[in-house]
Amino acid sequence: MARTIDRTTAGVYIIAATPFTETGAVDFDSIDRLVEFYRGSGVTGMTILGMMGEADKLTPEERLAVLDRFMARAGDLPVVVGVSDAGIASLSDLAHRAMDNGAAGVMVAPSRGPAREDRVIGYFHQVCAALGDHVPVVFQDFPQVTGVSVSPRTILELSRDLAQIVMLKHEDCPGLAKISAVRSAEANGFPRMSILCGNGGLYLPQELARGADGAMTGFAYPEALVGTVNLFAEGRIEEAEDFYDAYLPILRHEQQLGFGLALRKTILMKRGAISTAATRAPGPKLSAIDMVELDRLMRRTELKLKALG
Amino acid sequence: MARTIDRTTAGVYIIAATPFTETGAVDFDSIDRLVEFYRGSGVTGMTILGMMGEADKLTPEERLAVLDRFMARAGDLPVVVGVSDAGIASLSDLAHRAMDNGAAGVMVAPSRGPAREDRVIGYFHQVCAALGDHVPVVFQDFPQVTGVSVSPRTILELSRDLAQIVMLKHEDCPGLAKISAVRSAEANGFPRMSILCGNGGLYLPQELARGADGAMTGFAYPEALVGTVNLFAEGRIEEAEDFYDAYLPILRHEQQLGFGLALRKTILMKRGAISTAATRAPGPKLSAIDMVELDRLMRRTELKLKALG
Amino acid sequence: MARTIDRTTAGVYIIAATPFTETGAVDFDSIDRLVEFYRGSGVTGMTILGMMGEADKLTPEERLAVLDRFMARAGDLPVVVGVSDAGIASLSDLAHRAMDNGAAGVMVAPSRGPAREDRVIGYFHQVCAALGDHVPVVFQDFPQVTGVSVSPRTILELSRDLAQIVMLKHEDCPGLAKISAVRSAEANGFPRMSILCGNGGLYLPQELARGADGAMTGFAYPEALVGTVNLFAEGRIEEAEDFYDAYLPILRHEQQLGFGLALRKTILMKRGAISTAATRAPGPKLSAIDMVELDRLMRRTELKLKALG
Amino acid sequence: MARTIDRTTAGVYIIAATPFTETGAVDFDSIDRLVEFYRGSGVTGMTILGMMGEADKLTPEERLAVLDRFMARAGDLPVVVGVSDAGIASLSDLAHRAMDNGAAGVMVAPSRGPAREDRVIGYFHQVCAALGDHVPVVFQDFPQVTGVSVSPRTILELSRDLAQIVMLKHEDCPGLAKISAVRSAEANGFPRMSILCGNGGLYLPQELARGADGAMTGFAYPEALVGTVNLFAEGRIEEAEDFYDAYLPILRHEQQLGFGLALRKTILMKRGAISTAATRAPGPKLSAIDMVELDRLMRRTELKLKALG
Repeated sequence: MARTIDRTTAGVYIIAATPFTETGAVDFDSIDRLVEFYRGSGVTGMTILGMMGEADKLTPEERLAVLDRFMARAGDLPVVVGVSDAGIASLSDLAHRAMDNGAAGVMVAPSRGPAREDRVIGYFHQVCAALGDHVPVVFQDFPQVTGVSVSPRTILELSRDLAQIVMLKHEDCPGLAKISAVRSAEANGFPRMSILCGNGGLYLPQELARGADGAMTGFAYPEALVGTVNLFAEGRIEEAEDFYDAYLPILRHEQQLGFGLALRKTILMKRGAISTAATRAPGPKLSAIDMVELDRLMRRTELKLKALG
Repeated sequence: MARTIDRTTAGVYIIAATPFTETGAVDFDSIDRLVEFYRGSGVTGMTILGMMGEADKLTPEERLAVLDRFMARAGDLPVVVGVSDAGIASLSDLAHRAMDNGAAGVMVAPSRGPAREDRVIGYFHQVCAALGDHVPVVFQDFPQVTGVSVSPRTILELSRDLAQIVMLKHEDCPGLAKISAVRSAEANGFPRMSILCGNGGLYLPQELARGADGAMTGFAYPEALVGTVNLFAEGRIEEAEDFYDAYLPILRHEQQLGFGLALRKTILMKRGAISTAATRAPGPKLSAIDMVELDRLMRRTELKLKALG
Repeated sequence: MARTIDRTTAGVYIIAATPFTETGAVDFDSIDRLVEFYRGSGVTGMTILGMMGEADKLTPEERLAVLDRFMARAGDLPVVVGVSDAGIASLSDLAHRAMDNGAAGVMVAPSRGPAREDRVIGYFHQVCAALGDHVPVVFQDFPQVTGVSVSPRTILELSRDLAQIVMLKHEDCPGLAKISAVRSAEANGFPRMSILCGNGGLYLPQELARGADGAMTGFAYPEALVGTVNLFAEGRIEEAEDFYDAYLPILRHEQQLGFGLALRKTILMKRGAISTAATRAPGPKLSAIDMVELDRLMRRTELKLKALG
Repeated sequence: MARTIDRTTAGVYIIAATPFTETGAVDFDSIDRLVEFYRGSGVTGMTILGMMGEADKLTPEERLAVLDRFMARAGDLPVVVGVSDAGIASLSDLAHRAMDNGAAGVMVAPSRGPAREDRVIGYFHQVCAALGDHVPVVFQDFPQVTGVSVSPRTILELSRDLAQIVMLKHEDCPGLAKISAVRSAEANGFPRMSILCGNGGLYLPQELARGADGAMTGFAYPEALVGTVNLFAEGRIEEAEDFYDAYLPILRHEQQLGFGLALRKTILMKRGAISTAATRAPGPKLSAIDMVELDRLMRRTELKLKALG
């Protein structure tokens, strides 16, 4: 069984898509293929049932079945499981099922509703009490989607007071200063958190330079994230950025909020990782012009990589 | 079996709470009692599994079990079922189960996500195609919670182009002008919609005067809504308002967004309609001071009613 | 010169409308009349150039002219001046002009933009540094309009660290628990703040019972606010609520966000306090049906007051 | 005098920064220098007093002085003037002053407040009536900042019904489909609009491929926008994208909402276009780490351009 995440976890946790068949059923064979695709790209771990995994359109049975299939195939790849839910009981049930099944930790975003930081604090205390302190938690900070903005102090205090909150999924935007604020507070006595960054990787080199430990996002070229993070870790900064920049045009295209999911799944399909690009309704779909545009960006990415040697 | 809702439906459809036991399980016995309480107050129908019914904190099995219990007890009281869901397939499944079980119609709110009126239109076309045109639909217009503001024209065109959208649950605020806009457009050729009003009843007399057909909200004194609507229907307008005003202090107290659910369930408990005021986490709870405040308002409401004779 | 506000200020500070002529010019004669109307109703003070004063549609010269006219007429009525502005320099200029002119303090709302509580804290530190510590500041907490939600702790810490922040204009909604949270923290060592409540007075009796010091809102029947606050202060709680309840139907009507301004100005005009109900474009206007509706509520209010004796 | 914008306007309208001295005064000498810098980069025109021009932190006198200085220096460079204001009278005053002074048109964003598309329509009818139909108007569609989402149909109908609305400043995001929707509706009978794109240029090549006429944004390397648009216009698409991609890393860095303004002004200062990078409070400032990060991206941009030859 894979080890759980902790405050020093680093690398690339790829946000896994949930593949569907053309008729909208979960495509379990594609899950297997997708796991191998991710493994082949060199990722450190996977995060499943996240927002980009369309978890909110799965029934609870489907969530469990998807969880089981990913876990069965993951082997020693650590798996973080998104468990956000309108009710804490359902959240906790899924989290315990995930941990029993060998998950490395769970990811929770602040609940919607009247956003206010004292409510975020109260919410995470409730959630952690329901989970029990043996369940490692990733705090997902994604205000563009949750509508809940959170100050660095709130995250730091939560992670200090609730030892199980070991990781920040950093997805505020603009958010570079937040990474620096967290690292600076740690230098002044707050316990260290692992910081993995989202937003499709749009600022990954800058985030790493500021002390992030890696990426947790779903870019359909995971090898780009892995290569960038590894070169950075080796101190080969210029090479890391050159490598990253070759992917940047298509990365910034895929990163479009909401619509990007259809691009991501289409790239994964074209690269052979899943069978169809289907999303569940209501979900984005590519038009003919979207497809031409994407093909062009994919082709140009290949050329850039060739030029890079 | 009760008749389905249509474009002339009028009266009071009470938004039903979902009762829980102190340990958080669905309290089915209290469902039975609650239905009798509502029936005894003279309501025209019930709306279950709405936002105030904490439907998003129920598992799909629980939703079905709650649906079945309400339907079993409802008898000839028509029941509208809230079916909003992040995925259209799940929405449609619940809707069909509800209609097979004798529901009078289903209620759908525009999905969150990047709000824009063309997307609302596209979404309802998708939803109605999935439902089939025999399922009557209530358009729930509640921007304070959904984050999606919708122009009268959008609602009118949807109801014209999708004949099954027969009712507007009016909950925009300020929203009195919207009722007048819809009624005025109908006078100019748009098909009539039934309009039942929400927002806890905070503007009910004004809404009725502008042509609304009644109320669809969850005020824990349903007899106040029923009496007001009935007196209005009989043309006894001053009496209707006097009666309504006696309830207004506690009505405006209960109407507080989010927090009001705890007040509502506590009043229902104190009035013997359900066994506990428990809400599922994360949900509002009354403090000691909240309780004293509520008791005082309940007591004053009784005194006002006595004074009214 | 009137005394400045401090941490014990109590009573009713009426939010003053800014009167315009039918052609949109500032109506200075009506300012004089309005001040006398407010004075006659027994208010403790006035708050001018607030959001409901349409300050953002005035040019800086007009703001100064309006300020001067109100100050010239106010006599010993203390005047708080709304100075919120996109730029801190402009905010500070107006504040100093106001204080030089005898104002009792200034009111500032958190600036829009990416809302986050650490930014609110930084913003108020910047603002107070620009103002100088001799300028008393009211923290306007109005998330429904500013889009910025603020925890009690943030307000308390700001008021502790910046001694000049002496008053909370309480306008969060639902917000009763916030009053209790502030009063409770004060009992545990935070410096006392004056709390005056807004939201049109919709929860005034409850707010007073929880320790608020009065009201700061613009209800067009200021005597209703004054009477309620005074009866409360004398411990005649039941009488206070009976008196308040007589106004509640029209109070809750006027309290409609945005649209309510047109109602308020129309009532003030009908009561002889200003010459026209004009608002500056883009601003709300009453339709014929709105006017009938309002007349009816005004007439019913008079009847209730007569019945009260 | 430069010609006014119309429905066929194409090219790059650079959003001009407003330069300040270290003490916060408008830096008029830097305005002169900035105009020459922009002119030297080959832009088609300028847009002044936009959101990124910190217009809301200028007093009306300053706005006029800034307008005058830009106009005096612009010569035959057409200038669009941002005139958005909380009040329509102030908006109209500035617009007329601008047109009298030789401006090519004015830019207006939907006003905040309760966003709804019927209100956007009403607002623009009011605005255009106040402006008179000889004033060409740019519809600024920037929901990330205004909070107002607008369907393509609303824009198209406004531009059809109000002939003076000749240009869409496209800044919705994700927004590529919106360009295609507008162009497709034009093919079906709606009058053509000029479309210039914002968002810092983050999707410029894709936008041009979908039929946009150019860019209206403030990237501190305007020659990047000009070169991309010109190469596209010549049909040298691959070259255009290669050229664009060299700038993409720093372009996507500068494009960070809010914070990006400080980056932009710093680059302009480093390139000699303005004397200081000062923004008016409350405004973003670069930390030491921000500065190192930016230097690095600027240096890498130069290297990429050299490699491009």
